[in-house]
Amino acid sequence: MRDRPTPYLLVDTDVLSANAYAMARFATDRGLRLRPHAKTHKTPEVARLQLAAGAGGLTVATVAEAEAFAEGGVTDLFLAYPVWVDPDRGARLRALSERAAVRVGIDSVEGARALAAQLPGCAVLVEVDSGHHRSGVQPSDAGVLAECADRTGLDVRGVFSFPGHSYAPGAAAEVAAEESAALRTAVGSLGEHGIEARVVSGGSTPTAWWGAAAVRTERRPGVYVFNDAQQWELGTAGPETIALVCVATVVSHAGGNVLLDAGSKALGADRSAWATGYGRLPDHPDARITRQAEHHAVVTWDGSPRPEIGSRLRVVPNHVCVAVNLHDELVTTDGDVWTVTARGANT
Amino acid sequence: MRDRPTPYLLVDTDVLSANAYAMARFATDRGLRLRPHAKTHKTPEVARLQLAAGAGGLTVATVAEAEAFAEGGVTDLFLAYPVWVDPDRGARLRALSERAAVRVGIDSVEGARALAAQLPGCAVLVEVDSGHHRSGVQPSDAGVLAECADRTGLDVRGVFSFPGHSYAPGAAAEVAAEESAALRTAVGSLGEHGIEARVVSGGSTPTAWWGAAAVRTERRPGVYVFNDAQQWELGTAGPETIALVCVATVVSHAGGNVLLDAGSKALGADRSAWATGYGRLPDHPDARITRQAEHHAVVTWDGSPRPEIGSRLRVVPNHVCVAVNLHDELVTTDGDVWTVTARGANT
Repeated sequence: MRDRPTPYLLVDTDVLSANAYAMARFATDRGLRLRPHAKTHKTPEVARLQLAAGAGGLTVATVAEAEAFAEGGVTDLFLAYPVWVDPDRGARLRALSERAAVRVGIDSVEGARALAAQLPGCAVLVEVDSGHHRSGVQPSDAGVLAECADRTGLDVRGVFSFPGHSYAPGAAAEVAAEESAALRTAVGSLGEHGIEARVVSGGSTPTAWWGAAAVRTERRPGVYVFNDAQQWELGTAGPETIALVCVATVVSHAGGNVLLDAGSKALGADRSAWATGYGRLPDHPDARITRQAEHHAVVTWDGSPRPEIGSRLRVVPNHVCVAVNLHDELVTTDGDVWTVTARGANT
Repeated sequence: MRDRPTPYLLVDTDVLSANAYAMARFATDRGLRLRPHAKTHKTPEVARLQLAAGAGGLTVATVAEAEAFAEGGVTDLFLAYPVWVDPDRGARLRALSERAAVRVGIDSVEGARALAAQLPGCAVLVEVDSGHHRSGVQPSDAGVLAECADRTGLDVRGVFSFPGHSYAPGAAAEVAAEESAALRTAVGSLGEHGIEARVVSGGSTPTAWWGAAAVRTERRPGVYVFNDAQQWELGTAGPETIALVCVATVVSHAGGNVLLDAGSKALGADRSAWATGYGRLPDHPDARITRQAEHHAVVTWDGSPRPEIGSRLRVVPNHVCVAVNLHDELVTTDGDVWTVTARGANT
């Protein structure tokens, strides 16, 4: 922790491993498939750990992420996104399909047709809006889209949703129940159109521990493998389960504060309305990052003597997925350096 | 614009060039040195354009950015940041000093001593807090720090500030006056300690056109070369002066909205309290990006027929500096592809 120039991301491999195994065990014990979302880590070493722990395939957000993980040896990938499959993405998905089992999300007739034109017979899941109101069809409309996709020659395997509204204090249990209800309705809707939903896939780290098996056959949490300040403040994860920090240097005491060299270009700028700051300091739980610039974090100190200028502090990012995407490398407590191979893989 | 997979950043080189020359002419006409902040573009081609237009050197935020631009042939660099110069940064700054004139910001005795220990005689500017209350000493304290730095053997050239509180509607003129007053006080404070402030350097794009010469000898705007939705909504820049957009694809009409594949990992998550959304659509000025996820922008449409799924739209990021840092390349309207060489150069 002394020599490497700051800011950099440090992964505690013991905590990482414990997180990977705990979630895999939870899923396995309930007969669920764990398919972690790899947008969180974008790193083959973490993917391999998740698969070794018992995960059955990975989830990704883009074709480029899928390509990066296929390159890293992953053979079962779900693009949980209503991908617009133009000829470029079509060619890339066909190449990918020769190396890995590939499933794609759909939430529109247009999207399904474009996919079918490029990849006849491709396995798909219909995305369902379970209350987050971002993408996905209404649960009762899932069957119509599924039937249409089936008629275009796609292989409809089932339904999925992302309950992003679970990112609110105290919301997890209720949102998990909402997601189960939405997925159950969607499964019924597929049934009315003569299509069996063999895969029923739910998302999100806050809801991952809730709702037992319910209707779902598969879970897709992402953040859980590292955890972050959002999960800490939501109560989803204790600080002892946080596997990734940004190591930063105190550069100034201006204004009576502690200024760190880790700003929005090292931590990300995500800040939910309920968050207490722009990340947390695990060794100083009462301190708060009250302001942020690209290369500055302004820490309102906790009343104890301020750490000296030049000393180093650990910062937990609010949202680990965006923090990792800002770095080319992750340094580990074992002294290894992992390349974030899917960093910036947005296409 | 048809073939390249989305999302990607597209630079209009005509507008870019007009912006670079307009600001350089404004400065030159007033006998000011323009030293643009290169954290905005992180790209040698843009730096060369700025220097060709009349800029005198560049500003950077980190040693790694300075290294990237020195590699690109820039020979005059100001690190406008209270850099903590540990032995690693000391060695890198010494190597850099052999290729370029280097100036470093200081805002503490500790920072000045660490720098002097590594780079005796290094040129420095004292950072002054002109009302943004982030880094920098109080203006009347500038002389004490300058004298201390001088005694440690540093070459004190003057003072600088960053008036970041100019990023508020209607604030630019008043904040520019505040900055001038703070810098004037700081210059006087140096004088009381027998040190002449030969360089008096002010920052920020919103204030760049204000305050005429006043006390300043140098200006360091960054965003102006591209402009962005923040400058548009602040009224600092008209939409016709925006030189960079993110090209995105419509992937869904879920919820009656227009969903784009450019989320926080392509645009950044910056959103000031006064911003009307997470970026703007120049071709649909009444539409608003009301929600954002890592790979989704949810656009509340403007009442006109929604663009088809699969069609492409242009999005102006809220804060162009963080958007550029998320991409490895900038595509230009001339068909060139520029590498963002200083992307992620945080150390």
